[in-house]
Amino acid sequence: MCVFMIKIDENLTVVSPAGFKASGIHCGLKKSLLKKDLALIYSETLANSAGVYTKNKVKGAPLTVTKKHLTNKKSQAIIINSGNANTCTGDDGLAKANKMTSLCAKALNIKNDDVLVASTGVIGVPLNIDAIKDGIPSLVTNLSCNNSSAKDACSAIMTTDTVMKQAGVEIEIQGKKITIAAMAKGSGMIHPNMATMLSFITTDLSISPILLKEALKTSVNLSYNRISVDGDSSTNDMVLIMANSLANNETILEKNDDFNLFLEALTLLNIYLAKKIAKDGEGATKLIECTVKNAPSIENAEVLAKSVINSNLVKAAIFGSDANWGRILCALGYADIEFDPEKVDVRFESSAGEIVVCKNGLPTNFDESKAKKILLQDEIKILIDLKLGSCKATSWGCDLTYDYVKINGDYRS
Amino acid sequence: MCVFMIKIDENLTVVSPAGFKASGIHCGLKKSLLKKDLALIYSETLANSAGVYTKNKVKGAPLTVTKKHLTNKKSQAIIINSGNANTCTGDDGLAKANKMTSLCAKALNIKNDDVLVASTGVIGVPLNIDAIKDGIPSLVTNLSCNNSSAKDACSAIMTTDTVMKQAGVEIEIQGKKITIAAMAKGSGMIHPNMATMLSFITTDLSISPILLKEALKTSVNLSYNRISVDGDSSTNDMVLIMANSLANNETILEKNDDFNLFLEALTLLNIYLAKKIAKDGEGATKLIECTVKNAPSIENAEVLAKSVINSNLVKAAIFGSDANWGRILCALGYADIEFDPEKVDVRFESSAGEIVVCKNGLPTNFDESKAKKILLQDEIKILIDLKLGSCKATSWGCDLTYDYVKINGDYRS
Repeated sequence: MCVFMIKIDENLTVVSPAGFKASGIHCGLKKSLLKKDLALIYSETLANSAGVYTKNKVKGAPLTVTKKHLTNKKSQAIIINSGNANTCTGDDGLAKANKMTSLCAKALNIKNDDVLVASTGVIGVPLNIDAIKDGIPSLVTNLSCNNSSAKDACSAIMTTDTVMKQAGVEIEIQGKKITIAAMAKGSGMIHPNMATMLSFITTDLSISPILLKEALKTSVNLSYNRISVDGDSSTNDMVLIMANSLANNETILEKNDDFNLFLEALTLLNIYLAKKIAKDGEGATKLIECTVKNAPSIENAEVLAKSVINSNLVKAAIFGSDANWGRILCALGYADIEFDPEKVDVRFESSAGEIVVCKNGLPTNFDESKAKKILLQDEIKILIDLKLGSCKATSWGCDLTYDYVKINGDYRS
Repeated sequence: MCVFMIKIDENLTVVSPAGFKASGIHCGLKKSLLKKDLALIYSETLANSAGVYTKNKVKGAPLTVTKKHLTNKKSQAIIINSGNANTCTGDDGLAKANKMTSLCAKALNIKNDDVLVASTGVIGVPLNIDAIKDGIPSLVTNLSCNNSSAKDACSAIMTTDTVMKQAGVEIEIQGKKITIAAMAKGSGMIHPNMATMLSFITTDLSISPILLKEALKTSVNLSYNRISVDGDSSTNDMVLIMANSLANNETILEKNDDFNLFLEALTLLNIYLAKKIAKDGEGATKLIECTVKNAPSIENAEVLAKSVINSNLVKAAIFGSDANWGRILCALGYADIEFDPEKVDVRFESSAGEIVVCKNGLPTNFDESKAKKILLQDEIKILIDLKLGSCKATSWGCDLTYDYVKINGDYRS
């Protein structure tokens, strides 16, 4: 059982769990020589592994290859490029995704199907495989278990992200210290059900592949699938986890307290990164957290919270620090979930305080200047009470800004 | 039968059909004295009438009153205010919506339930009924069948609209000239299934109330329900039609050629106005028209076309005249409709020409500068060929711009 509070540690990286190495280099997919674009995560031993993928019908070639290589639920390395999504690239794209893993496997002297692959960037442009081929030798040479190498890897998966997203947690299972760490990227096309969102999780825990997959799926549904930047689900999203057993705990084979502790820590880590992604949404200036409580079911609460988080009108109002709660009720109303508008309370909360703006579906006579002060902060909570049940769900997103339009008006140039 | 082509006439207004009058005044709901905010449409005789409403669960008080007053499928007047949606205003709001109709009925010396009511503007703010009460006498006095009065009415229903939206068509049925005309408003919270979109249609046709309703619903599904500005369905949308029989045609009682001609003309008029609303979306600089063809069903084609039209990423790319067709495939992919991404062709078209950017799901080696030239125009067509069937659907929207964010960052002030 857990003997200490689970706490996010921002200094932990994907190389913090025992036996993991990482590296990141510039190979030439991004124009700027200063920007890294090729990353590698490597485990000294074969790791039980699992993945969760986008539900978009248009899928990037790397997804096809990674899914296939995970048939045996094992992997030893993940190679990731930014600057090109290798999607809508047909047979050529598929051949190149395969080439990425085989070149990498050869350089690492491991089996081809123990290498997973992910790509992020522009869609529909042929991948420059020569740049990757030329880069792999130094990518492998640079592998190390130093945090600086993990940082290189983390920066190599960024596209329009403005900050690196990595963190970890430590827990104790059977007296052994277990480390779980991850690196992730956003930041456009972010929407529930995996957006252009990549997250790579490493842990030295020993756990059966089936339970690993289950823990991953559960935690992803509570974290990455609860965020939205722009309502666009990408073609290339994936979350991968590698558990290499080097912590030497007795392998978790059932849903016991150890499993629950791992799940809790994993979920905490993923929520932390998901919020980081939401806050770093393209052009965003604010993190918006919407909680719907006292709903008849978690599913209902989730759909309603996401509807609010996705509303362009709500997002633009939060950008303008405008307490336009009518738009929140409107967004609840079109979510196609039964609720009673005349029971709804809406409250805004931030570091500057809290204010109830709507009570039983009606305006409270609230102090506009106080509301403004609350909404001027960079993390805004929207709390909605349905008074219909006892379930709740939280969803995260960001405001809609001039810069979102600017970034996306000409992304390719 | 039709002896001439049905053609939109931009000079026709809601007073063009026989027996209709209109007026519009400033009563004080909008701050600027120069902006009209109260409109009236009146028929000399009781008119068969029908309405279609928002599907949002949060509904404005005017909808409740109008629906009730339409139980007998008849009306003689419609009073509309802008500047306040009278939504999330509880019993007080309902009482005020009722008051609007009863005051209007009294001034017109007609029955209360023959007056319909609509409101548009901010949500959750008590309606200033005194201003409306004081305005009704001059609203009634100003009623006339001049186009200038119709123009006053049309401008009085505008919120963030930048252009007036009114037009009409003339057809011949049984040797009688039939006129159908309408005025409408946008321009935010526009999304399939009725957004903050109001449209009021008048005609002198004689038709049974049941067929009138059916024609209205069919045409609305092909027009207003096919447009989207921001994905937010409003609380107050409605489309109302009044048919006062003064053209003296033999009443249409079945779905014969006369009905079909009327339906065709009505649909043409509604599509014309829907496109005007889409093009005048908040902050919009371009009209986007997306047609999905060779789909297995109209429903599938419609969902896919709407998904493209709703994508913030597609909208921002069109704003930037960026031929980023990968986002179009991505938007098709998350629409939750089965199709084969590897069969899809995508073509852009405008007054500057046309260009195929994607063939069988793969990039064509297209001329970027030619694509740019095409996308720099203010009406852009996106043509998608699924090669899976023979059905098609078209949807309309607009680009996502800095000004959308600006307008919606502080709408209430």
